[in-house]
Amino acid sequence: MSMSLVQHTLDRIRPLDEAAMAAARARQDQLTKPLGALGRLEALSVQIAGITGALQPPLERKAVIVMAADHGVAAQGVSAYPQEVTPQMVLNFLRGGAAINVLAKQTNARVVVVDIGIASALPSHPQLLARKIALGTHDFTLGQAMTRDEAIAAIETGIVVVEEQAKLGLHVVATGEMGIGNTTASSALIAAFTGATPERVTGWGTGISDTIRQHKVAVIAQSLALHRPDPADAVGVLAAVGGFEIAGLAGVMLGAAAHRVPIVLDGLIAGAAALVAAALTPGVVDYCIPSHRSAEQGHAIALRHLGLSPLLELDLRLGEGTGALLAMPLIEAAVRLLNEMATFGEAGVSGADQ
Amino acid sequence: MSMSLVQHTLDRIRPLDEAAMAAARARQDQLTKPLGALGRLEALSVQIAGITGALQPPLERKAVIVMAADHGVAAQGVSAYPQEVTPQMVLNFLRGGAAINVLAKQTNARVVVVDIGIASALPSHPQLLARKIALGTHDFTLGQAMTRDEAIAAIETGIVVVEEQAKLGLHVVATGEMGIGNTTASSALIAAFTGATPERVTGWGTGISDTIRQHKVAVIAQSLALHRPDPADAVGVLAAVGGFEIAGLAGVMLGAAAHRVPIVLDGLIAGAAALVAAALTPGVVDYCIPSHRSAEQGHAIALRHLGLSPLLELDLRLGEGTGALLAMPLIEAAVRLLNEMATFGEAGVSGADQ
Repeated sequence: MSMSLVQHTLDRIRPLDEAAMAAARARQDQLTKPLGALGRLEALSVQIAGITGALQPPLERKAVIVMAADHGVAAQGVSAYPQEVTPQMVLNFLRGGAAINVLAKQTNARVVVVDIGIASALPSHPQLLARKIALGTHDFTLGQAMTRDEAIAAIETGIVVVEEQAKLGLHVVATGEMGIGNTTASSALIAAFTGATPERVTGWGTGISDTIRQHKVAVIAQSLALHRPDPADAVGVLAAVGGFEIAGLAGVMLGAAAHRVPIVLDGLIAGAAALVAAALTPGVVDYCIPSHRSAEQGHAIALRHLGLSPLLELDLRLGEGTGALLAMPLIEAAVRLLNEMATFGEAGVSGADQ
Repeated sequence: MSMSLVQHTLDRIRPLDEAAMAAARARQDQLTKPLGALGRLEALSVQIAGITGALQPPLERKAVIVMAADHGVAAQGVSAYPQEVTPQMVLNFLRGGAAINVLAKQTNARVVVVDIGIASALPSHPQLLARKIALGTHDFTLGQAMTRDEAIAAIETGIVVVEEQAKLGLHVVATGEMGIGNTTASSALIAAFTGATPERVTGWGTGISDTIRQHKVAVIAQSLALHRPDPADAVGVLAAVGGFEIAGLAGVMLGAAAHRVPIVLDGLIAGAAALVAAALTPGVVDYCIPSHRSAEQGHAIALRHLGLSPLLELDLRLGEGTGALLAMPLIEAAVRLLNEMATFGEAGVSGADQ
């Protein structure tokens, strides 16, 4: 497995369109509102103009790409739920019973479920993309979570999935995931990339006790001491303590940025994946819209390292892409306001006193 | 003018429906997600159940009631915009060119514009409710902003408007406003009700200079020293330093609570109106959903006093009801998630380890 698709994709990621951003800023300042009164929504409309090269890009075709995989480290007893919940929840996604399905229906997004490394066989299903790299990662307290080739293959899978979605029409993409044990892998990645201590990046995941959370901190600390991952070697960090769905989401981000499609990040796991993508090419971050700040404490650390400030703070800690879809109406509002509001001139409204 | 309609409305406001809230909480805990993983959206679904008495209340029929009025205190040079902007922006609302119109279209809400005290005559328009109490308030640096009878009449106007809307079908109501000078009146009200200093409650409004903002602080401090309003006398505080649209919105809140309709609060001015309503009957606060925390510093002080924590923090400072409509999709999401997600039993998903 070569890095050629990854390298080709990195080469296609260009800076944001400055001319479109300048035009968006100029229009914001003519709209019938005090300068800057729409706050973060103004900056968001400018960013989307920079990503898409248009002031009024279509946003109808939305997808949330939900990457699912298992984690060998789950054997260390770091989660409140047994590993069988990963495939059970994937079946719930396919039947439409999960939170992500409800929000996808509300926001008119398609749910793209990808088995990128679940530890058990799943029945084939028209809505399930079977792209298993392996039957889960290895337990990274004992050795590498995956090989470098597997890490690259998982990133490439994300790139390919987003390219397939782009062919179907994709105006904005949200990241989602499922994987028992993946807050442990994500916290380890965040510690590796940001230099923050395991104590600071490790939260209570799906609802573990304080005792199990202390054990989780120790598992992460021991694993980082074992592997000593080099944050400049993104693939090496992924291979050491990552997960297949996290690598896949990093690929989704790279592929979407190459296609100039805005990327709406969900919570902790998306934050870890964005750190991987940013370590491969910092420019990808300009294409990312952070949706919410998770109740998981490592998420804020990841976002700060990326220079991103979330739109929502709802104490969510569910994953699946739920926070990302909750932010979709704000993104649509930002673009609509830029384009549909009257200017002072059109409306005959007096400007501010000089 | 008697207080009979106000008193009758206060008498109709009942506590939230505890049985419906208990049923909502019980269902949240059976849904296919870790306990509490939907964070604030879970509490929101429980509150809406308590308000409406139903786990799955309809939310289709939405209205934003935009109360517009002028302020005598604008003569003190406390705003960046001339007073003529109040009617100009009302005409912009009626033509559909303002931010609130764009968001109302996106969220399928009707915009109800009420002239409750604009200082000039407006052309009649089928979408404009002409309910002027007076041609603006008096300059409260010199005397009372309005009489007690006018304050009561403005509250009653809000009650009547929301009752008219309820007859048309109203599942959720958002508060909106327009009035050059109304951040000054609102900041004065917030200082009077919370005891915070004028320095702490006064912001930069629509974008004044630091010098003008210092003048605004002094105007508020002098007015409070002149009137010494008693926070236990809500009508007296309104009469001293309030505004017609603020009184009207307090009436909207009381009327909506009496009808068991959820109230989505916008920013600073709604916060001041909610303090008025809460001073008349504290139970009205249970019916209020705070949408966002405004960039105006007095807003956080008002929300804290009311015990409310906002859903969004987008540095908005526009008013009109924009923040309230931006929160509508979150409110719909909270109710949909409660009702449309599968339970663990239905989905065959394993629960947390004991």
